[in-house]
Amino acid sequence: MEFGLTDEQAALQRVAREFVSDVAPPKQAKEWDEQGVFPAELAHGFAELGWYALPFPESWGGGGGPIELAILAEELGRSSLDVAMTYIGTLIPSLTIFEWGSESQRKALRARLDSGEFRYAVSMSEPDSGSDSASLRTSAKDMGDHYLVNGQKMWCTGAGVPGTQLVMYVRTSVHERRHSGISLLLIDPRTEGLELRQTSTLARHILGTYEVYLQDVVVPKDRLIGPEGEGWKVMLSNLETERVLMSGAYVGVAQATLDDMLSYAQDRKQFGRPIGNFQALAHALADLQTEIDAARLLAHRAAWMLSKGLPCAREGAMAKLKGSETYVQAARLGMQVMAGHGFATESVMSYRWRESIVAPISGGTSQIQRNGIARSMGLKPY
Amino acid sequence: MEFGLTDEQAALQRVAREFVSDVAPPKQAKEWDEQGVFPAELAHGFAELGWYALPFPESWGGGGGPIELAILAEELGRSSLDVAMTYIGTLIPSLTIFEWGSESQRKALRARLDSGEFRYAVSMSEPDSGSDSASLRTSAKDMGDHYLVNGQKMWCTGAGVPGTQLVMYVRTSVHERRHSGISLLLIDPRTEGLELRQTSTLARHILGTYEVYLQDVVVPKDRLIGPEGEGWKVMLSNLETERVLMSGAYVGVAQATLDDMLSYAQDRKQFGRPIGNFQALAHALADLQTEIDAARLLAHRAAWMLSKGLPCAREGAMAKLKGSETYVQAARLGMQVMAGHGFATESVMSYRWRESIVAPISGGTSQIQRNGIARSMGLKPY
Amino acid sequence: MEFGLTDEQAALQRVAREFVSDVAPPKQAKEWDEQGVFPAELAHGFAELGWYALPFPESWGGGGGPIELAILAEELGRSSLDVAMTYIGTLIPSLTIFEWGSESQRKALRARLDSGEFRYAVSMSEPDSGSDSASLRTSAKDMGDHYLVNGQKMWCTGAGVPGTQLVMYVRTSVHERRHSGISLLLIDPRTEGLELRQTSTLARHILGTYEVYLQDVVVPKDRLIGPEGEGWKVMLSNLETERVLMSGAYVGVAQATLDDMLSYAQDRKQFGRPIGNFQALAHALADLQTEIDAARLLAHRAAWMLSKGLPCAREGAMAKLKGSETYVQAARLGMQVMAGHGFATESVMSYRWRESIVAPISGGTSQIQRNGIARSMGLKPY
Amino acid sequence: MEFGLTDEQAALQRVAREFVSDVAPPKQAKEWDEQGVFPAELAHGFAELGWYALPFPESWGGGGGPIELAILAEELGRSSLDVAMTYIGTLIPSLTIFEWGSESQRKALRARLDSGEFRYAVSMSEPDSGSDSASLRTSAKDMGDHYLVNGQKMWCTGAGVPGTQLVMYVRTSVHERRHSGISLLLIDPRTEGLELRQTSTLARHILGTYEVYLQDVVVPKDRLIGPEGEGWKVMLSNLETERVLMSGAYVGVAQATLDDMLSYAQDRKQFGRPIGNFQALAHALADLQTEIDAARLLAHRAAWMLSKGLPCAREGAMAKLKGSETYVQAARLGMQVMAGHGFATESVMSYRWRESIVAPISGGTSQIQRNGIARSMGLKPY
Repeated sequence: MEFGLTDEQAALQRVAREFVSDVAPPKQAKEWDEQGVFPAELAHGFAELGWYALPFPESWGGGGGPIELAILAEELGRSSLDVAMTYIGTLIPSLTIFEWGSESQRKALRARLDSGEFRYAVSMSEPDSGSDSASLRTSAKDMGDHYLVNGQKMWCTGAGVPGTQLVMYVRTSVHERRHSGISLLLIDPRTEGLELRQTSTLARHILGTYEVYLQDVVVPKDRLIGPEGEGWKVMLSNLETERVLMSGAYVGVAQATLDDMLSYAQDRKQFGRPIGNFQALAHALADLQTEIDAARLLAHRAAWMLSKGLPCAREGAMAKLKGSETYVQAARLGMQVMAGHGFATESVMSYRWRESIVAPISGGTSQIQRNGIARSMGLKPY
Repeated sequence: MEFGLTDEQAALQRVAREFVSDVAPPKQAKEWDEQGVFPAELAHGFAELGWYALPFPESWGGGGGPIELAILAEELGRSSLDVAMTYIGTLIPSLTIFEWGSESQRKALRARLDSGEFRYAVSMSEPDSGSDSASLRTSAKDMGDHYLVNGQKMWCTGAGVPGTQLVMYVRTSVHERRHSGISLLLIDPRTEGLELRQTSTLARHILGTYEVYLQDVVVPKDRLIGPEGEGWKVMLSNLETERVLMSGAYVGVAQATLDDMLSYAQDRKQFGRPIGNFQALAHALADLQTEIDAARLLAHRAAWMLSKGLPCAREGAMAKLKGSETYVQAARLGMQVMAGHGFATESVMSYRWRESIVAPISGGTSQIQRNGIARSMGLKPY
Repeated sequence: MEFGLTDEQAALQRVAREFVSDVAPPKQAKEWDEQGVFPAELAHGFAELGWYALPFPESWGGGGGPIELAILAEELGRSSLDVAMTYIGTLIPSLTIFEWGSESQRKALRARLDSGEFRYAVSMSEPDSGSDSASLRTSAKDMGDHYLVNGQKMWCTGAGVPGTQLVMYVRTSVHERRHSGISLLLIDPRTEGLELRQTSTLARHILGTYEVYLQDVVVPKDRLIGPEGEGWKVMLSNLETERVLMSGAYVGVAQATLDDMLSYAQDRKQFGRPIGNFQALAHALADLQTEIDAARLLAHRAAWMLSKGLPCAREGAMAKLKGSETYVQAARLGMQVMAGHGFATESVMSYRWRESIVAPISGGTSQIQRNGIARSMGLKPY
Repeated sequence: MEFGLTDEQAALQRVAREFVSDVAPPKQAKEWDEQGVFPAELAHGFAELGWYALPFPESWGGGGGPIELAILAEELGRSSLDVAMTYIGTLIPSLTIFEWGSESQRKALRARLDSGEFRYAVSMSEPDSGSDSASLRTSAKDMGDHYLVNGQKMWCTGAGVPGTQLVMYVRTSVHERRHSGISLLLIDPRTEGLELRQTSTLARHILGTYEVYLQDVVVPKDRLIGPEGEGWKVMLSNLETERVLMSGAYVGVAQATLDDMLSYAQDRKQFGRPIGNFQALAHALADLQTEIDAARLLAHRAAWMLSKGLPCAREGAMAKLKGSETYVQAARLGMQVMAGHGFATESVMSYRWRESIVAPISGGTSQIQRNGIARSMGLKPY
């Protein structure tokens, strides 16, 4: 057993912590959120530091694996979940293209990794298809050399950021088994017939959330990623990596939330003593730190299993479940500790409150995670 | 035992429910919140319906008591907590003036009750005085025929609404017993030397939240309410009524929150069935309705005790604690049930999420309520 | 609204509290439990005080209703749940016989009410039929003037107490609708072919828990209660009264549990102060008292609705759910507060720990209550 | 990072799992508990398998460290907490003697490790000294060549098992700083003036719980372990190892509890399906497995830190807190899942219910752990 970081991992952590501290401290993340801007310095920073290439082969400038990704995601999460997602949201599709893409698609990917000038936005959900992803209906009709895509997508995070390609799951054929006939297309949002409408949300304004309307959108065949009709398999192939990254980010932002309230609880005095010394708060803080530590360990374990090539659907779901719920718990306690000062939007805590609630919802709700864990235990929860 | 409403109470409830449905449905409350306006129709409506006079003697046009106030507050809460507070925030100081005011102060009060043109805003908290109210330091120096007030107040809800008088607790003398030497002054916010600065907050934008800066503010002696130096006693005198009103409002908004998510859970289908039929959600909804019912009963019990003149510090604290925590619980579940649709600010649920968290903070935090309940059990929790 | 007791109710409460204090204080209940005896003084006391007749018409010596039953059950619960069940377990079948029985059955019932010499024990569960009561299979074959009963029953509380008649739900015919074809028989456990085997359990030893084996047991036709085949309806007819009584008992025993730990927390000193003054415990105690009060109000509301003839399936389920879970919560906290002293079997708290866990299981599990509440909200939880 | 076991660790785990399965399966542990016997085969087994020597130097036949201890404790915990304590309760004092003992004390220790014929029982608590250990008053008066010990001890686990030596913390001098003046003595319980009285408890009957009465008990000076007056330091020196062992045991018994209820939930059918497929239970089981995994990781982390010589007071407290609370949570859910079958004492689950509640009480209550964690965060929780 070894719970420590290697020197390289520790260096990555240190660099990432400094990056967040310098470029994207929580107050800065909150400002970006309030302005609804995706700052170029973030993506450029990721590229310059080689993080977009991190999980790829050394020949591509990478060499890291799931553990390094978890470490990095946690540090980025210390800024905010949204900031971490600016990285994760592009990295995951990159991995998908690397794994499933054609030679030329991979080449194009590699060419972009060093710049901060590219982005991807996964587009899966539809008005009637949320947790039940396989019920998606946006259709891509085979027209010989291209697909004609029609339908509507929702909750597409980051679709409107300049330079973004949509990584969209569509239905290329209808089967009795709903998981068949789904395909993955890479779509330029500026294509004719495609319209983006931003959804106003409580947070996640750095990336933005969009509806995508598609009417006879022409997508060349060479934008298909992976085999036609096997999009479900393609999607599943990076699910655990996504969960590891997200779990890392949850842990980071939960820890930052705790650090913030702890500092306040030590400074703020009422009844002649720091409020953190009142046992009811002190014990709540102790419990929260325990849960955050637990969430971190669950994330690290999933990352380690993934790095070993071990199946970890259960462990990934546990990490996702625990991490996201812990962030919500952290924000809840933070608001109680900071009281009015948290309710004031000047505080970073107010931003945590707005943002935290997306964690147990997006990327698979807590209910979906519990279903998965239960299935891994031999139960059929519905 | 009797848990039903009298005909008059049922009529009040019906009228109030219609008023909310017509004038201030949740969607409307959310709009006011987003615009940060205190709509004239609200206050005028309260006045026209005789609600400002409700708890006063019949000769004043009243005749209601705590039970009627709880019923009314619950219905107003169905709009939003903020809307309910537009009523409660003015009513409580009215009761204080009625009980402690001079003959002319009471006359002035009575004259205003039928109009919607007056408002009060209680001002107690200071930068260093939150839960520990008795540590307040804003000073009022006796200058013969007037006080000279200096200091800073915070978290003053509604201070900036036109026509509002500040009902401010200040220190007129310094004693060893910190609860002595506090006095209550009625201050016009337009007085020279007084400055309001709005605090940006997550919600409660209809009333607004303000800092109050006071520099040599002249307040005539006839603006003193109750005996000089006995402001603490004055403050305590309506604490239970305030808790009953707030508890009622919490229950109303929690119920509205549940009704909203239940309706969504019945309409929204995934995996071929309404999501509310998935047992994990169904049971969570059942638990929530149980807790809301419990919170309502606790509020009603406190109201009944108050109406009988029974001491009910414990029962008021229980109602406040349970009601506020239940609203937070409702918003949490609502966000989980509505998922992305709740995260979208178009939804009323997003407004609940922003607003709910003020409930266990303002008007005495949950920790302060638990301290009070514990003391009533013979314990000394700090 | 009226949350107070009438003079008669207050008198009943006082008498019951004295009875428990004199005859069945918790320490005594624990001794009976340890000895596994049903003390004659209990049943005689109930009879002498007229409590077996309480819910019946005044001509029978009664005149009380659900509210009185809830009050009485709470006081009996202050002894222990098991003690309260010695009353409830016989009272409910008495009501069933009163409502559904033939003239002679009712006559026989009335004749017994003043003595403490009779008891009933409801027998419903079977090895394969627990929460799913309607799946029961014990069969009663029509043999002209009698039924021939075959099958096996489980979890029959109190079956072995001398003088007990089994009130057994059996299947007299097989239908597609499983709720049809069930009938209720009154069976003397000393009948040939019937064998009782006591089940060793964690608590509830005063009444005892039994398996009932039936092999060609002859039951005369005049032991049928209510119409043949309509046993499900018969069972449902007193379900709300049962829940009101049980909810009352839960509240009483939860309150007694709290009183016990509170007293300990005030006496026991560590680190130079009563442990109850440590805020973590003080707040937990405050929360518990709040929940107990809520549970009591839910029980009273259900009782009141029942007394008014209002449908209260939902409210009864809420009271049952909240009461039983609160007892478990109370025992959990009590063990933490009393620590080793609770773990020692000398303490009443150790008895609470053993007993409390039956509350959310028997008489319909918490899951079954939540299903019922959810259904009342328009959901189909399975 | 490495979450896997080495081959040696895996072998240890396998052997231990087989040992438990063969010699001490849960049903067997429950029988020993019911009979109140400490079976010779347990201690002999531990000795034969070399486990008593495990954490000692290789020259003593050991070579294992905290990680191996955590692994072993978890496997023993799969039998029951009590069974695991038969090992832990003797191992910890052995380590203390190894670290602090004189040459001859260590020699005596070493001579015993291969036999199963020795045992230790730590004796710290007193009637007025529980969580506040430093307030202990049992006095040892220096009489030249021996101490004269007077006082009373409580909650001494295993004191009455044949061949047991008491490892007793006594006060050899009174100081202003209460943590000074405490010393550790090795006392033979058969010494004149010493009386053991067994305390009847809910569980832990294999080891038994005892009061120790000491009246002018003569203890030779060579039974002093470590420097006189520095017993507090001696006690602290193995606190983390104790927590690692106990945390491992909690995880093991919690996992066994889950495995048991899961198996039941898959077999038991109601309403035509395995009850584990009802989502409310399935999700509860998924949550529990997640928490158990988290507890295991916290225990492993603490063990790893200890093995590296890193300070881990915080991490040990977290592992202890989470492990013990998770066992209680497991037993609570197990009783709900198994319902009547858990309430029947034939079931192992009923034994879990009785036993689990000692976990968050003994070895430092959950409150004490939270105090420690809070202090490590810079707070002063009392």
